[in-house]
Amino acid sequence: MADLLITSAANPRLKQLVSLRRRRTREEQGVTLLEGYDELALALEAGVRLRTLYHCPELMLDAEHQQQLVDDERAHGVEVVRLSRAAFEKVAYREGADGFLAVAPAVRHGLDNLALPDNPLVLVAEGVEKPGNLGAMLRTADAAGVDAVLAADPVTDWGNPNVVRGSKGTVFSVPVASASTVDTLKYLRDNGIRLFAATPDTDVLHTDVDLTGPVAIAVGTEKYGLTDELMDAADSRIRIPMVGRANSLNVATSAAIVLYEAVRQRGTR
Amino acid sequence: MADLLITSAANPRLKQLVSLRRRRTREEQGVTLLEGYDELALALEAGVRLRTLYHCPELMLDAEHQQQLVDDERAHGVEVVRLSRAAFEKVAYREGADGFLAVAPAVRHGLDNLALPDNPLVLVAEGVEKPGNLGAMLRTADAAGVDAVLAADPVTDWGNPNVVRGSKGTVFSVPVASASTVDTLKYLRDNGIRLFAATPDTDVLHTDVDLTGPVAIAVGTEKYGLTDELMDAADSRIRIPMVGRANSLNVATSAAIVLYEAVRQRGTR
Repeated sequence: MADLLITSAANPRLKQLVSLRRRRTREEQGVTLLEGYDELALALEAGVRLRTLYHCPELMLDAEHQQQLVDDERAHGVEVVRLSRAAFEKVAYREGADGFLAVAPAVRHGLDNLALPDNPLVLVAEGVEKPGNLGAMLRTADAAGVDAVLAADPVTDWGNPNVVRGSKGTVFSVPVASASTVDTLKYLRDNGIRLFAATPDTDVLHTDVDLTGPVAIAVGTEKYGLTDELMDAADSRIRIPMVGRANSLNVATSAAIVLYEAVRQRGTR
Repeated sequence: MADLLITSAANPRLKQLVSLRRRRTREEQGVTLLEGYDELALALEAGVRLRTLYHCPELMLDAEHQQQLVDDERAHGVEVVRLSRAAFEKVAYREGADGFLAVAPAVRHGLDNLALPDNPLVLVAEGVEKPGNLGAMLRTADAAGVDAVLAADPVTDWGNPNVVRGSKGTVFSVPVASASTVDTLKYLRDNGIRLFAATPDTDVLHTDVDLTGPVAIAVGTEKYGLTDELMDAADSRIRIPMVGRANSLNVATSAAIVLYEAVRQRGTR
């Protein structure tokens, strides 16, 4: 059966697709959006099953090779829709559209869906607002072999297209969950995980503490840091030494520095 | 004398200001653009002297306090121009304009303008394209106490507004230079600085080498990494351990991880 083909940028189906940029619409429909060949490939490799795949051969960077992904998904029974360039450009949400866009069921992100290994390394991001920062943290968590990333009282959702994009698709491979700060703290306590709060408000350096056991590292918003609630519940406060004038590292950078100190202490992978 | 006041968004002076978003225009005029109160304050603290300061009290987040900066600059003989909201919004290049925009003479960025301390820690960014990445590296370099950031064969310039913005103004406080890769390598050799090339193409981890002496850490573009020219000239190749699926850290994140390993080895600051 030939794929559905949409050539008119006025097609109502495109309007529906554009409406998925809104968090509420995604949540109502229980779906997430993926754009770009590399992200899609990574998500599929991580076991994501697509609901609909939109493609535009004219925009593909390497159509001959990339068309295989479309053929495979079609063979797996996924609905495949081909778009004209004008139609695709209407629904693409990022610059440099490469002809791939898909809708997938939202991953469930409750703490009860997590399965942690022995001696886990966990990242807790509290209140982080910028999707780009959350995406960057996922990318680092993936590289560092972090066992779970927990968003506590999150302002953004894991299905946000800019999180997916910033994460280079690792949002589908790194175990993630969202919960209130209260529930996150309870979860860590119940699982015997020591909580280290990254804050300028201590003399203990991140390199001075033992990060080899079951450990969670918490980072807060760039503007306000961690909440008192989380700080009070932490087993230790740690800080990254800073000497400069601006005196603040990007939150994703801070997470990377502490996580890789943990990787160093835990031994070569 | 009252400040010049521009209320019309059609004023030709605004058009000139907008034209400074182009690198060539900035280079021809030997100037750089700064936007935002925090960046401006940091630049002024670092000794930057403004040519013209544009301000819009209606857009200021804390006009009572921030007006002091305008008064100080006026008292120092800087040309001060007040803009209406419509006029300011025409020239502002970033979201969330806060009523501060300035033109300053471009800093000279030759290697011969650098003065390194004994036992320097240097970051070399080769070919990095994205201004946001260069800005992020400067912010980290500032926090880590890096003595100089060298852009080798750069695609972007230090005066790029997105570099200034991403750096939170630290481009004016961290010593920076641009040069060809050849000249950068010669400079490091002449100054007895050991060069460590960050690359996946080695078994030596970044935590396995001695980073306590006069050291430069080189990172390349996200897509292609470092050039053969630089890799061949490096004293050692080092890699950051990665276990994930995406298998690539952001270039600014990589720089942060290696720089903070150097900070750890060099002792608490």
